[in-house]
Amino acid sequence: MPVPTIEWKNNRVRLIDQKALPHKLVFVDCLTAKDMFRVIQDLTIRGAPAIGIAGAFGMYLGVRASTSDTFKGFFNDVKKTESYLALSRPTARNLFWALERMKRTAWQNRRHPVPVIKKKLLAEAETVLAEDKAVCRSIGRFGAALIKKGDTILTHCNAGGLATGDFGTALALIFTAHAEGKRIKVFVDETRPVLQGARLTAWELMHEGIDATLICDNMAASLMAQGKIDKVIVGADRIASNGDVANKIGTYSLAVLAAFHHVPFYVAAPLSTFDFKITAGQGIVIEERSGDEVRTVMGYPVAPKKIKVYNPAFDVTPHYLVSAIVTEKGIVRKPSVKTLARLRSY
Amino acid sequence: MPVPTIEWKNNRVRLIDQKALPHKLVFVDCLTAKDMFRVIQDLTIRGAPAIGIAGAFGMYLGVRASTSDTFKGFFNDVKKTESYLALSRPTARNLFWALERMKRTAWQNRRHPVPVIKKKLLAEAETVLAEDKAVCRSIGRFGAALIKKGDTILTHCNAGGLATGDFGTALALIFTAHAEGKRIKVFVDETRPVLQGARLTAWELMHEGIDATLICDNMAASLMAQGKIDKVIVGADRIASNGDVANKIGTYSLAVLAAFHHVPFYVAAPLSTFDFKITAGQGIVIEERSGDEVRTVMGYPVAPKKIKVYNPAFDVTPHYLVSAIVTEKGIVRKPSVKTLARLRSY
Repeated sequence: MPVPTIEWKNNRVRLIDQKALPHKLVFVDCLTAKDMFRVIQDLTIRGAPAIGIAGAFGMYLGVRASTSDTFKGFFNDVKKTESYLALSRPTARNLFWALERMKRTAWQNRRHPVPVIKKKLLAEAETVLAEDKAVCRSIGRFGAALIKKGDTILTHCNAGGLATGDFGTALALIFTAHAEGKRIKVFVDETRPVLQGARLTAWELMHEGIDATLICDNMAASLMAQGKIDKVIVGADRIASNGDVANKIGTYSLAVLAAFHHVPFYVAAPLSTFDFKITAGQGIVIEERSGDEVRTVMGYPVAPKKIKVYNPAFDVTPHYLVSAIVTEKGIVRKPSVKTLARLRSY
Repeated sequence: MPVPTIEWKNNRVRLIDQKALPHKLVFVDCLTAKDMFRVIQDLTIRGAPAIGIAGAFGMYLGVRASTSDTFKGFFNDVKKTESYLALSRPTARNLFWALERMKRTAWQNRRHPVPVIKKKLLAEAETVLAEDKAVCRSIGRFGAALIKKGDTILTHCNAGGLATGDFGTALALIFTAHAEGKRIKVFVDETRPVLQGARLTAWELMHEGIDATLICDNMAASLMAQGKIDKVIVGADRIASNGDVANKIGTYSLAVLAAFHHVPFYVAAPLSTFDFKITAGQGIVIEERSGDEVRTVMGYPVAPKKIKVYNPAFDVTPHYLVSAIVTEKGIVRKPSVKTLARLRSY
């Protein structure tokens, strides 16, 4: 069984320190919104759905110490915490979705006394986590239908248990297909610069006893040319209403390579990743991170100190390169404004 | 001026320890064929033309201690050294080209006494080095014509001075265009797993004062989609007679991405890289290296210890994805058996 990525325990949020993996499985406690901001920003916790859960708990942590006894004052603190946490990372839609949901919960309970609203907020964050677990299992069930016995799958970054409550999005398909006895093989892109594939996905797949092989990101094309990849499955950080997908840098590269080699390219993501306010990928803000992530590998210098670096954390894959998007409500083939429209009603 | 990658000095071969770059510029001395085998195999020296030069000197080092005073006995030692050094790395054509050339030189001088043949062999190795320097400058002159003022160029791995005697193949075009005042910019793929781009190309370009930006290999597609790359220029380790190109792993990926984005894709290589005995890329032996190169980054572990790894050092780019090959004899556009035929006559 997957290890819980994030949980509420002893009046605090306990989460896996993903920066220490795969060498050590250690946990970090967050007691304040500031703690939560830091662990999101420095990638102690990462993965769009996990960031969403962290954001929900972060909202509660930010207001549980509020001294206002009027709703107006309290709601001000809610909004302040929302604006603050919104700055931790810009791309993952799930963060903003969770912050908005928590704010809405506060507003919907405005007739209650502040201590009751606080309890409702904690309960809502716990619901966000519980729902994520159910949603990921549903994504796994729907998506596993795309995987045939003996398939070899390529995945990028980590869209596994560690990117969610505990079961993953892209890896949910793989875990489910594996549990169904489909004897699949997985190639794992190491995913520079932060190596989520090498450190996290490799670790998760080994933990589940799945046949996994690590490659460098630049080896995927060669495997495809050799006919060794049956499908590519990745997660998503934000999906526009036309189906354009922002995901970890390198995803777009894989999508182009998959199209060239006639390999199906699947995206797995919960509805909370969709941003129907954005019409197309160009509207998605792409986070640029410090050049030191590229100049060094996990702190070890690998390039001249003063070399300029371009380090976008994400890229955008246009919908026409995506064969299907798997959500907890089912599979949407050939994503487009039209085919994705029914998801808006949930 | 570029630093000499390899030279004959004080009766020994002195070469830059490329594993120590960019942190330290240190030199390694080779006195025997065994020394040379080791530095080729462990990547202290790398880059197809540089491996060729190393192979030529390695042949001399291997036979200078030969005690045979008959040509027959001496030539046996020549052949033994050739077979031995041929096992150091399998893909770069230039190594085999140089070993054969040295063997031929011994044979052509068979009427001379052994001490004279030894001198001729040293002179031949020095000629291989001197020719490389001239060849690279010629490649630079021809190829620079492909580069326009203000172009932004993407390169992969290191096809620079460090991959040759001192001036490079792909980087020869860049050095020459820069010297011509074309104010070019260069994006450098870091080139996992051994990071020749981050460690060597970034260092060389900074050393020459060229505007260089380092990226991870998986970021190239995103730059192309943004219209930020005008051309891709890479080196080659072996070119088949139809123009299929074996080069550092990740090259094929770039070639597909370049084709998709309508970006010209150029290969720069001396004639010694061509293997006219091989009709197509499928005939090229691709070296697979230790999985530890991927599980670690410069010795620092970044993945689970026991994760399986696939680590091919090279891939093959089919000729139809190559816009042109630049050689010391000129530019061959749309490489094919037909267009490359005239190179056979040199």
